[in-house]
Amino acid sequence: MRNPSEENYIQQLSIDCVIFGYHDKQLKVLVPKLVFKGDFCALPGGFIYQEEDIDVAAHRILQQRTGIGEIYLEQFFIFGEASRNSLKFIEKLIELNSNELTGEWLQRKEYDWFTKRFVSIGYYALVDINKVVPQNTDLDESIEWYNIKDLPDMIIDHNAIVGKALETLRLNLDEKLIAFNLLPETFTMKDVQELYETIFDKPFARNNFQKKILDLNVLERLEKKFTGAANKAPYLYRFLNKTAG
Amino acid sequence: MRNPSEENYIQQLSIDCVIFGYHDKQLKVLVPKLVFKGDFCALPGGFIYQEEDIDVAAHRILQQRTGIGEIYLEQFFIFGEASRNSLKFIEKLIELNSNELTGEWLQRKEYDWFTKRFVSIGYYALVDINKVVPQNTDLDESIEWYNIKDLPDMIIDHNAIVGKALETLRLNLDEKLIAFNLLPETFTMKDVQELYETIFDKPFARNNFQKKILDLNVLERLEKKFTGAANKAPYLYRFLNKTAG
Repeated sequence: MRNPSEENYIQQLSIDCVIFGYHDKQLKVLVPKLVFKGDFCALPGGFIYQEEDIDVAAHRILQQRTGIGEIYLEQFFIFGEASRNSLKFIEKLIELNSNELTGEWLQRKEYDWFTKRFVSIGYYALVDINKVVPQNTDLDESIEWYNIKDLPDMIIDHNAIVGKALETLRLNLDEKLIAFNLLPETFTMKDVQELYETIFDKPFARNNFQKKILDLNVLERLEKKFTGAANKAPYLYRFLNKTAG
Repeated sequence: MRNPSEENYIQQLSIDCVIFGYHDKQLKVLVPKLVFKGDFCALPGGFIYQEEDIDVAAHRILQQRTGIGEIYLEQFFIFGEASRNSLKFIEKLIELNSNELTGEWLQRKEYDWFTKRFVSIGYYALVDINKVVPQNTDLDESIEWYNIKDLPDMIIDHNAIVGKALETLRLNLDEKLIAFNLLPETFTMKDVQELYETIFDKPFARNNFQKKILDLNVLERLEKKFTGAANKAPYLYRFLNKTAG
């Protein structure tokens, strides 16, 4: 592994990605486990090259660390407390892996760059778990979808970063519904309600929910086909052709 | 003026503050003009000390550059394009002020720190113009409230930063209504509607607007006092005692 201090990165600025996965009424988060001894779980993260837009860096990092490209990723918060650094995590990692690590790592100066205070830009996405195939990289022993109610302990403040991402997701879901591209081309109101109930982790009253969603003015109701049978099939909807975001 | 490279700041990371002012159906933005020749207008901005939380830095910068303390300030976006830097602005400033500037400034190395690419964290606030008294600092020739429809040309991307702040304000106004503390202790529905119409720069239909606002469940309607006269006075409201944010 190349030492990050040798790369042409912006100092003390990092990116962490919270990838929410939705499928079958479950909300999950994609968490890699690092190759080192100690079961270190961490959000997919990395640094920004001097010549690179932060949005481009976020996509590159996600692609490199998970194999996932081409998804709608958005910044949601910047984590900037003065006390925010990796020192404890790195010291624990070195303690547990001292036999495997080279001398370069064991000398403080080799990881000095990395243990300074870092301000981290949080990016989040919400994807259909069936539409993406996460992959291990050299840095990771494994990568898994964890139910959001059963996340592992992650390094630094990564559990809190997921908490803030979930809060933002709930606040912005109405506006991001199209952009996140979670529902099939046509869907029922029940599909939408299940998505909301999963993300908010609570039931919604059906009539109120339907009214709220229709009031967003983003859905088009399709005509029912005449089937000859009793007309009990639910209405199908699709998104109006609006610009995402 | 002390050269920023001598301070213990985080490199390549800055803060810019968009202070919206509301009063009498007008939305304004607080813009200082720098002391240098050339009419350089710029949002109140600055840098982050190594030992300082970014939220603390934002408040310190705002206090130092405008005299305004104790307001509810919130991060809204991070501006991180690779091409984002002050080089053009600084070169123009030096060209127009070459007679006044000391030799230190005229040598490229003295402003090299400042002309690198900067990632900037945008903070915004919305205040009642009557409740704050902005002040000039040594760095500024003047500081003024400009109507948002009539902003001066500002340096770098500061006009675009205001645009993004306004977009965020509109998106989050329902949730931030209490936190921004813009309305008097008791107010009429018309007061709220005027605030929204000013910020969105469009009229709202009265009945729909009232229903939307009441559905937020943040207002308490006060009992009318019996006056003996025809009861035509509008209802007064106040915010329910909820946590801001």
